[in-house]
Amino acid sequence: VNATGIPTNAGPRRGSKVVPEDARRNNRRLVLQRLFIEGPLSRADMARATGLTRPTVTDLVASLLAEGLVEEIGRRADQGIGKPATLVGVDPDARHVLAFDLSDDEHITAAEVDLTGKVVSRRIEPWRDHVGEQAFAQVLRLAHELVASATRPVLGVGIGSPGVVHDEGTVLEAARLRWSDMALGARMGESLGLPVHVTNDANAATIGEYTFGTTRGENLLLVRVGQGVGAGLLLGGHLYTGDRSAAGEIGHVVVDADGAACSCGKRGCLETTVTAPLLAQRLDGADPATRVDVLAGAGRSLGGALATVVAMLNVDDIVVSAPTDLQGEPFLRALATAIRERTMAAVGGHVELRYSTLGEDDVLLGAAVLVINRELNIA
Amino acid sequence: VNATGIPTNAGPRRGSKVVPEDARRNNRRLVLQRLFIEGPLSRADMARATGLTRPTVTDLVASLLAEGLVEEIGRRADQGIGKPATLVGVDPDARHVLAFDLSDDEHITAAEVDLTGKVVSRRIEPWRDHVGEQAFAQVLRLAHELVASATRPVLGVGIGSPGVVHDEGTVLEAARLRWSDMALGARMGESLGLPVHVTNDANAATIGEYTFGTTRGENLLLVRVGQGVGAGLLLGGHLYTGDRSAAGEIGHVVVDADGAACSCGKRGCLETTVTAPLLAQRLDGADPATRVDVLAGAGRSLGGALATVVAMLNVDDIVVSAPTDLQGEPFLRALATAIRERTMAAVGGHVELRYSTLGEDDVLLGAAVLVINRELNIA
Repeated sequence: VNATGIPTNAGPRRGSKVVPEDARRNNRRLVLQRLFIEGPLSRADMARATGLTRPTVTDLVASLLAEGLVEEIGRRADQGIGKPATLVGVDPDARHVLAFDLSDDEHITAAEVDLTGKVVSRRIEPWRDHVGEQAFAQVLRLAHELVASATRPVLGVGIGSPGVVHDEGTVLEAARLRWSDMALGARMGESLGLPVHVTNDANAATIGEYTFGTTRGENLLLVRVGQGVGAGLLLGGHLYTGDRSAAGEIGHVVVDADGAACSCGKRGCLETTVTAPLLAQRLDGADPATRVDVLAGAGRSLGGALATVVAMLNVDDIVVSAPTDLQGEPFLRALATAIRERTMAAVGGHVELRYSTLGEDDVLLGAAVLVINRELNIA
Repeated sequence: VNATGIPTNAGPRRGSKVVPEDARRNNRRLVLQRLFIEGPLSRADMARATGLTRPTVTDLVASLLAEGLVEEIGRRADQGIGKPATLVGVDPDARHVLAFDLSDDEHITAAEVDLTGKVVSRRIEPWRDHVGEQAFAQVLRLAHELVASATRPVLGVGIGSPGVVHDEGTVLEAARLRWSDMALGARMGESLGLPVHVTNDANAATIGEYTFGTTRGENLLLVRVGQGVGAGLLLGGHLYTGDRSAAGEIGHVVVDADGAACSCGKRGCLETTVTAPLLAQRLDGADPATRVDVLAGAGRSLGGALATVVAMLNVDDIVVSAPTDLQGEPFLRALATAIRERTMAAVGGHVELRYSTLGEDDVLLGAAVLVINRELNIA
């Protein structure tokens, strides 16, 4: 929620008691946040940046050093009077994270990622036409292999899954994989003996983009054009997942009641006009002019559907996550134009649209961030 | 943001240092929240409900008694062993709030409201065809009169204004009143010597409904059909206002590119199909069958525009705020049907639509709550 949002009467869930452990946990988070965001800092820098006292910072840094999460990495050169300050930084290799992107129809992408989001090694494996339990078994087997080959202690496993995913790690519904109430996180966690965090692909991409991309504000709308169309919403710096974990599931909104039949049984769903496979098919062998028309048409269609959302949310920052070969100026321009033409200038005139800065790794890196944030309690 | 939202890397604004004053302030808020929500409680009840220690609660209650905000209101009857517990409750008349609803074209509604949201007295005054500075002067004069006639110490003034309102109390744009960057809160506050809080009418109605209505969840979408069409969004228990305070401003989203010309210069804006004056005009002298058609058509139009928003936000709880004479089964049913037909069943099937439980006082009472929450720091 917006940091400047007006507070309202709050129920029991919304209050929280402040006790010493909470305070320490909170202070630890503040210090780690600064180190993750700003890089190596002296203890004095951390005290200044967080408002904590020097002794508190010194104490927290000592425990982070003991955990091996941070390291002393030399002294600052450009120092004035007195002893140069020792710089402390997160050790990128203190732990590694195993990240999975299950959103592609053709292959599973998995990676070992360090704490700064750098991919240390990557595995791409074709799905073996598996669905249901067999698909689960394939993902689990791959995870065991990655754990065995990991070069550092593994902090946890992060998964970007297609479908509707409950925050607790259960895939409520993923049509293509024929997963329904698949307790992916719990079952993999039990088998691996590691924490496993799952979110859907659009949400993972949103977290990835927010963390490593060029986002400046606290509100971000990410629209993902992949096997289907989905979106991720980051509002007030937090992922918003809705009443039933289904926020962002816009693929089956009817945009044209007289449109083409959709696999869901309705007509004219957004996914009958814009998906990666559909566009790839239309672009296949197309001449340049047709190519521009196809992409512009897709952009207009998506923009028309998003206009009300953009007006409702007043989000300036919109990121499109799409396969590289479908990206292009005509699509983005048509999308922006459709949004601007259908919203009032005070809103649409400030919208900035761009492609994900992480390219096709956005889901993978977002899944890694999910683990880092949750397991290190830094967000 | 959703309480179960996945945390993400956070910037400096998102952290906050925990210091003793914050802890005390937070604890005070917890106690006041419980008293506001649950009514009279014993000190032991409060300790149980908040998780605070008995001495902390006793200390906080002592200071609240000293402020005159709460009072001891007798002993509990149904007590087991030992001395019956003394019950402490908020004194509804400890302070009163002056609330304004400026959203109607015809008249200003103002009221003196107690701390439980009860209207103690009400003033309805026709706008004197004033706009700009003269409209401001009329509101200010009325506020001075209400302050002079207030029967209790005034906690502050709350205003629900039409237009786009910045959180700090400036009306960025209110077309009908011809206000542009009108520093309503600051100027009235200076003149009255009282805190003045301003939000737009849809946001005020949302806060009112969330606080006094039957809302159960933490997410609420309120759609207000008045002189225009606007919406308020409460997400994760907090009002969401967007990047430029314009969240919910959906009135000028184009829903039909071939539609009627709109005052804004575009064609087919939502406000060319559904507003209170437009519907009133179409219903004037209409026979019952036509009446049903008009209301159902308006519901369909609004539902078509909202479908993408409902899918994107996955909000189950939708409240319609509209003048009483425009409310009716045909409108609500057509609205619900349009949303359900255009969204997937997993989302649309759970949507519950209803009219505001506060009726036409929702803006007024929401404006009062804004003052109570902010000035008493209970949210």
